[in-house]
Amino acid sequence: MSAKTRQESDTLGPMDVPMDRYYGAQTMRCLLNFRIGGEEERMPRKIIQAMGILKKAAAETNQEFGLDPKLSSAISSAADDVISGKLYDEGHFPLPIWQTGSGTQSNMNSNEVIGNRAIEILGGRIGTKDPVHPNDHVNKSQSSNDTFPSAIHIAVATALVKDLKPAVRALKDTLNSRANEWKDIIKIGRTHTQDAVPLTLGQEFSGYVQQLTNGLDRIEAVLPRVYQLALGGTAVGTGLNTRRGFAEKCVNRISQLTSLPFVVAPNFFEALASRDAMVEVHGALNTLAVSLMKIANDIRFLGSGPRCGLGELQLPENEPGSSIMPGKVNPTQCEALTMICAQVMGNHVAVSVGGANGHFELNVFKPLIASNVLRSIKLLTDGCSCFNTNCAKGMKANKEKLAQIVSQSLMLVTALNPHVGYDKSAEIAKAAHKNGTTLKEEALKAGIAEKDFNDWVRPEKMLGPS
Amino acid sequence: MSAKTRQESDTLGPMDVPMDRYYGAQTMRCLLNFRIGGEEERMPRKIIQAMGILKKAAAETNQEFGLDPKLSSAISSAADDVISGKLYDEGHFPLPIWQTGSGTQSNMNSNEVIGNRAIEILGGRIGTKDPVHPNDHVNKSQSSNDTFPSAIHIAVATALVKDLKPAVRALKDTLNSRANEWKDIIKIGRTHTQDAVPLTLGQEFSGYVQQLTNGLDRIEAVLPRVYQLALGGTAVGTGLNTRRGFAEKCVNRISQLTSLPFVVAPNFFEALASRDAMVEVHGALNTLAVSLMKIANDIRFLGSGPRCGLGELQLPENEPGSSIMPGKVNPTQCEALTMICAQVMGNHVAVSVGGANGHFELNVFKPLIASNVLRSIKLLTDGCSCFNTNCAKGMKANKEKLAQIVSQSLMLVTALNPHVGYDKSAEIAKAAHKNGTTLKEEALKAGIAEKDFNDWVRPEKMLGPS
Amino acid sequence: MSAKTRQESDTLGPMDVPMDRYYGAQTMRCLLNFRIGGEEERMPRKIIQAMGILKKAAAETNQEFGLDPKLSSAISSAADDVISGKLYDEGHFPLPIWQTGSGTQSNMNSNEVIGNRAIEILGGRIGTKDPVHPNDHVNKSQSSNDTFPSAIHIAVATALVKDLKPAVRALKDTLNSRANEWKDIIKIGRTHTQDAVPLTLGQEFSGYVQQLTNGLDRIEAVLPRVYQLALGGTAVGTGLNTRRGFAEKCVNRISQLTSLPFVVAPNFFEALASRDAMVEVHGALNTLAVSLMKIANDIRFLGSGPRCGLGELQLPENEPGSSIMPGKVNPTQCEALTMICAQVMGNHVAVSVGGANGHFELNVFKPLIASNVLRSIKLLTDGCSCFNTNCAKGMKANKEKLAQIVSQSLMLVTALNPHVGYDKSAEIAKAAHKNGTTLKEEALKAGIAEKDFNDWVRPEKMLGPS
Amino acid sequence: MSAKTRQESDTLGPMDVPMDRYYGAQTMRCLLNFRIGGEEERMPRKIIQAMGILKKAAAETNQEFGLDPKLSSAISSAADDVISGKLYDEGHFPLPIWQTGSGTQSNMNSNEVIGNRAIEILGGRIGTKDPVHPNDHVNKSQSSNDTFPSAIHIAVATALVKDLKPAVRALKDTLNSRANEWKDIIKIGRTHTQDAVPLTLGQEFSGYVQQLTNGLDRIEAVLPRVYQLALGGTAVGTGLNTRRGFAEKCVNRISQLTSLPFVVAPNFFEALASRDAMVEVHGALNTLAVSLMKIANDIRFLGSGPRCGLGELQLPENEPGSSIMPGKVNPTQCEALTMICAQVMGNHVAVSVGGANGHFELNVFKPLIASNVLRSIKLLTDGCSCFNTNCAKGMKANKEKLAQIVSQSLMLVTALNPHVGYDKSAEIAKAAHKNGTTLKEEALKAGIAEKDFNDWVRPEKMLGPS
Repeated sequence: MSAKTRQESDTLGPMDVPMDRYYGAQTMRCLLNFRIGGEEERMPRKIIQAMGILKKAAAETNQEFGLDPKLSSAISSAADDVISGKLYDEGHFPLPIWQTGSGTQSNMNSNEVIGNRAIEILGGRIGTKDPVHPNDHVNKSQSSNDTFPSAIHIAVATALVKDLKPAVRALKDTLNSRANEWKDIIKIGRTHTQDAVPLTLGQEFSGYVQQLTNGLDRIEAVLPRVYQLALGGTAVGTGLNTRRGFAEKCVNRISQLTSLPFVVAPNFFEALASRDAMVEVHGALNTLAVSLMKIANDIRFLGSGPRCGLGELQLPENEPGSSIMPGKVNPTQCEALTMICAQVMGNHVAVSVGGANGHFELNVFKPLIASNVLRSIKLLTDGCSCFNTNCAKGMKANKEKLAQIVSQSLMLVTALNPHVGYDKSAEIAKAAHKNGTTLKEEALKAGIAEKDFNDWVRPEKMLGPS
Repeated sequence: MSAKTRQESDTLGPMDVPMDRYYGAQTMRCLLNFRIGGEEERMPRKIIQAMGILKKAAAETNQEFGLDPKLSSAISSAADDVISGKLYDEGHFPLPIWQTGSGTQSNMNSNEVIGNRAIEILGGRIGTKDPVHPNDHVNKSQSSNDTFPSAIHIAVATALVKDLKPAVRALKDTLNSRANEWKDIIKIGRTHTQDAVPLTLGQEFSGYVQQLTNGLDRIEAVLPRVYQLALGGTAVGTGLNTRRGFAEKCVNRISQLTSLPFVVAPNFFEALASRDAMVEVHGALNTLAVSLMKIANDIRFLGSGPRCGLGELQLPENEPGSSIMPGKVNPTQCEALTMICAQVMGNHVAVSVGGANGHFELNVFKPLIASNVLRSIKLLTDGCSCFNTNCAKGMKANKEKLAQIVSQSLMLVTALNPHVGYDKSAEIAKAAHKNGTTLKEEALKAGIAEKDFNDWVRPEKMLGPS
Repeated sequence: MSAKTRQESDTLGPMDVPMDRYYGAQTMRCLLNFRIGGEEERMPRKIIQAMGILKKAAAETNQEFGLDPKLSSAISSAADDVISGKLYDEGHFPLPIWQTGSGTQSNMNSNEVIGNRAIEILGGRIGTKDPVHPNDHVNKSQSSNDTFPSAIHIAVATALVKDLKPAVRALKDTLNSRANEWKDIIKIGRTHTQDAVPLTLGQEFSGYVQQLTNGLDRIEAVLPRVYQLALGGTAVGTGLNTRRGFAEKCVNRISQLTSLPFVVAPNFFEALASRDAMVEVHGALNTLAVSLMKIANDIRFLGSGPRCGLGELQLPENEPGSSIMPGKVNPTQCEALTMICAQVMGNHVAVSVGGANGHFELNVFKPLIASNVLRSIKLLTDGCSCFNTNCAKGMKANKEKLAQIVSQSLMLVTALNPHVGYDKSAEIAKAAHKNGTTLKEEALKAGIAEKDFNDWVRPEKMLGPS
Repeated sequence: MSAKTRQESDTLGPMDVPMDRYYGAQTMRCLLNFRIGGEEERMPRKIIQAMGILKKAAAETNQEFGLDPKLSSAISSAADDVISGKLYDEGHFPLPIWQTGSGTQSNMNSNEVIGNRAIEILGGRIGTKDPVHPNDHVNKSQSSNDTFPSAIHIAVATALVKDLKPAVRALKDTLNSRANEWKDIIKIGRTHTQDAVPLTLGQEFSGYVQQLTNGLDRIEAVLPRVYQLALGGTAVGTGLNTRRGFAEKCVNRISQLTSLPFVVAPNFFEALASRDAMVEVHGALNTLAVSLMKIANDIRFLGSGPRCGLGELQLPENEPGSSIMPGKVNPTQCEALTMICAQVMGNHVAVSVGGANGHFELNVFKPLIASNVLRSIKLLTDGCSCFNTNCAKGMKANKEKLAQIVSQSLMLVTALNPHVGYDKSAEIAKAAHKNGTTLKEEALKAGIAEKDFNDWVRPEKMLGPS
């Protein structure tokens, strides 16, 4: 931030703001009042980008309600640099998450930056609020109380649809390829972490695929309420100071800009006073995290070894595991992903606490809620992508080990039942358990012909109902 | 429990079980091995009832797959006393939640109780496993690993549809009546807990109605995955030891018995190894808890007083608040409901942790998950009903207080803007704030005619867009 | 509950109460107003017992402040039947957790029951409030607002010191015996679930012992603030309507009755308005749950098998794992314990939400907080005891398997470094990994003498710093 | 990052690394493998600084164990630029939180950066590992598995003692000044959010002071286990490859560098395999968050208004609340602080889930745990400071409003009891409630002399025991 300043003012008086920043007095004041955390605690970029979309749509819509087309056009252009992220990246949106709970100051930050940038476009002098006024023009027909929750919904819907869903789908597709590829590889089942009857590695992976399929359905199921925008509710939900028709037209424009089917919220009072839709969204993220933790944990254990673990999967060796010991491949992608899942489970509580503590006409835990939902989406998106690329795609089935384990298992004894009876089968198994031998060894000892054993004890016949 | 015992046995050997109980050796063994908590930690009644439904449906279906019709019929009759709750209430299902994580022991408890009761029906001697064997007949074509999760889904679907939804709907209807009744009562809005522009009490309550409407939609949105039953997967999801067609027919029968549209799970491996659907369900319950906490908190504060709070609502006086002070009506229903919401938020974490920690072919946190989901549903159901009956229905709007507060507010000054300009309006408001007077007093002092003031400053014109 | 009733009354008017119950009108009214949950949602027994202790101490102390010794004595006697749990078990304390958030109604329930029982002792007629009045005598110098939190602290301190600590200590002692017993059994270490350098089984278990030692220290660390009682604060913390000296003397008496070092809270306003001490206590319980989940998970995996898992531990076979397969011992005690841990982690959130939401002079989430803290203590106590008795005490080290795994490991290659150099060592390891052979086989092939190998590669020399 | 690169290599082969960065192949590899989140997901600065302290102490200690003094000195100097944060700020530590769960890659990042910087100091060529080798020299006698948890403990202890405690203490001192300043300002008490008997504003604030005093004690109580360092445990806790005495000397040096009383952990197996101490620390943070949420909520409501709320406190006007309405001061500092508290409550769950899921000899949720603990400390530190400076210091008691509310209250009627009897007192109160009048008005109507009323009804006599 340059040392040179200009003076801007708000209703509390003048403030020195950095010459090389578009923001004005209110942003500056907030910056001084909320010195909480550093760079990593900034209001998320996606919220500001969504604010840009909203301000652009509002400016264009306001033209129909009397806003000078020249101003409208300049605001719309200025908003483009917010939408692209350029102005965020250049430091014009420095405010932290931890500010007013309504996000008012980030709304004002947007108004000030877009206003000054529009002034610049129109050849005016930054800081003069002329010819573009941050409140009268950029914020026209709006209030922080309806714009900020709308920006949250825009950002979250976009992130869910354009980031998270593709990433989950890509991982699901990889796992599904594996499930198909491995559909005939027989392995031991494990229940209670104990040996159980066999299934195929493909069947096992098909369960993971179903979990992610359901995860995608769950995201889909919450979207209807994310597409509802508070815009038009203004300060308390009545829509005071806005114009009939503004909300519908503006939301329509937002839908065009985002290619997402946003609608005007059915009840503005709910849309301002609660953030239930975000709690609901995070419920879907929490469930996805739970699924991914299960999957990553399984893969971690199935890949444990190389000698002293289960060793059924070989994970790709992305980094040195041990300088001397070959085959020590740490399941680092599983570790990163399960850590992400734990974070998402924690974020969910933060969001729920914030959602539960709104009062009267306004929930004032909005930046908390928004930042957690967006962080969870980001982490799950990147986590799925990274896990997909660096682990799921490169995993290999250790066929020999899988076969060897199955052959050692005593659970196959159930296949002897119909042929030699329960009692004799149990005896054979007990002998094998006691002697540390295989079923086959004991079966032969017990007088079963090798050919019969081989015919009868075939795990591939134990993979479905009869 | 009577002192007299009979001997039953399982594969680990004989056990003395109380003469007056239908359960057998495995239940008794579990009882001794898991002395955790008392009566209040029992496996929930609804799970056992659902197990009854499942066992009845299985017995009837098994007739088509070779089960002796006489046995089938006796098992089906015996199951009826489980379904009604009678055998649970009489102490035949004493096992705690805290047992095997697959619910195996509660499955065996069901098999033993139904088996012995069926033996009794058929005139046999309890404990002989003849002519009805708990495993061979009652558990035929099943495994704990597919019956227990199926029972969870049956119990939860039933509780959601038949208990929770009606209770939420009833509360919503009451609040909606209030919203309509109060649609013209103007009140001050409050944002940031600070005075804001007015709305009507009906508008405020319409927000609560929308929250509950959404809550019902959220329950609806999770049901498809609750209706999916694991039945047919048996031990690891392959369906080993069951018969083709059994699952479909049995699930069909369960649907008939419950009048709910259950289906065979699309993937048994997911249905055994994860409990994601329950994590998802609890996400909906968590969101509902968040909504209810907001609503109950608002009502608590709006009803605060009688003299030193907001006093906009009068809550019904259900119990003595103070022996001497009239009008001290403690918002005890709000307190009970918000405590319930906090419990549900906590239960959600327990369920998520349990859901995330399944391994390989079986999640073994099932009794934990089931008991929390069912407890949350029960508490929310009873909490909504109780709050509805004892608070929402009896609340009254304190119209005088509401009007008095509006008239005191300085926020109405915005209505003067168009007539006397922003600057003069602000001056009037500042004077009123400084002098502790009303806007009207200061407006008259500032030369505005009373008639004009009355014409201009009309909160009823501030309730919507222009 | 008998059908016969008597009439009692409170300030809201008369109520019919069951003839065979000691409680009066206020309890009855609460029962009707809060139909939430059944038997399993009752106010915990320990809270009522603690209320008995408090009422006994208060009655005896009040004698010094003017209470008729005859009444004092009768109240004290009546309280004894509350302290023993008798009156709770007989149904005289039917109120649910989900009532007034201050616990007022359970305080009144205590006053009514003790009052009527004292009347009975004195030969009076139950329900007449003569000669013992529930408010004037039993509740003398008290308020719900100071008695209920005091009862919580009494109950929780007692449960921590007399139940939980001994149970944790017993489990710790068992694990410590194992650590000593197994101090020379060498096993492979596992980091990232991957093979690592060796340690002894005793060393591994010494880590668990340290976790529980710390757990006990953590409980100790929170006790000072649990020993602080709110008694003396009465309605808002000022102590209005009590007498100077009452609090000190009464708390002193409570200490005698419980043999625990209770003190008067240093600040009554904090002691009524917050329940921070309970949030803190639950933090210690949460940490203990985290420790126990780690320990139980490890034991579950170390005992996995019998053939297809790690198989380093043999867990006691408490119930049939599989009817046909010997050696399938499901780690059911681990499952019960880890489910308990998940519940405690969830309860912690409920307690935290309740603790954070107090307002002004009174936290009204007290029954929620108390019931969760006590439930967590109960579950952890029983969980530790049960796990200790039925798992920890009976576990066996599978020495052959442990040794076999170590011998297979490639990690021992590091021991060759000083003798043949890093490069050759790595080559040997790589060859073994590639060929599926042991280090020894490849070392011999590489020209190392068997005697040298045996001398050099000795895991017992890898167990500490040099 | 510059486009120019040099080649470095690790055991997996060569990697191009940016010429202007000190890190090497392993860091680069991690950067490519874990593209998760951006700048805001970096491994926390404090962890890296603590790693600098540790590496410096290790280098100096290793001199006693054979490390060339010239190398030792260069490493020590290089570490200084890590300790100061300079090398972190300049981008030499780019790795994300979401990496290997042991923090191995951040340990290697530290080794590489310090190694190359030391080479530079010694006039060597960066990237040659000569004369300073990242593993052989910088990491000498260490393992990621003992250095990373040690760095966590160093960072957390420092942040608790040097950041959080002073910030909490400063806020406590301000609130304590207020409690003293306001010790005679009588106000109405509120229980259940309803009018209750009076207390002083100073008494109310003394409760908050006690909460923070306890909060400081709670931090103190967890420190003993944070001061325990894992250093010396190396890979699995046995201390293989380190030297006897190294741990003690190195920890001693760390204590000197930090002026904090670190000790060698009593059990290395616990210190590597669990992160219980961090779960415990976060329990204290969670309790502090709960306290602060209570305090900030109270202040928010006490400051509500200006006309339509409680209005007992005037909060400083830090930013425009409403452009036209004077006196609308949004409690933005309360909002930021309560959002922070919600975040901390959520982070606690993430930490607990991570702590519970360690396996065998190593917990691999360490970066998750560390980042959440440090973020919570940072947010609470900044939140307390910000709230202190911008809210607590500037709050004013609205004495007129406080007095007016007390005078309106009906709760003072209890003071009439001893003089006119309970019945007549209750009648007076009922009349006042019904007629909307004051107690005094009705008392005079009922024949009480004004002088008597003024003598009898004196709230200042209701502030303590009699």
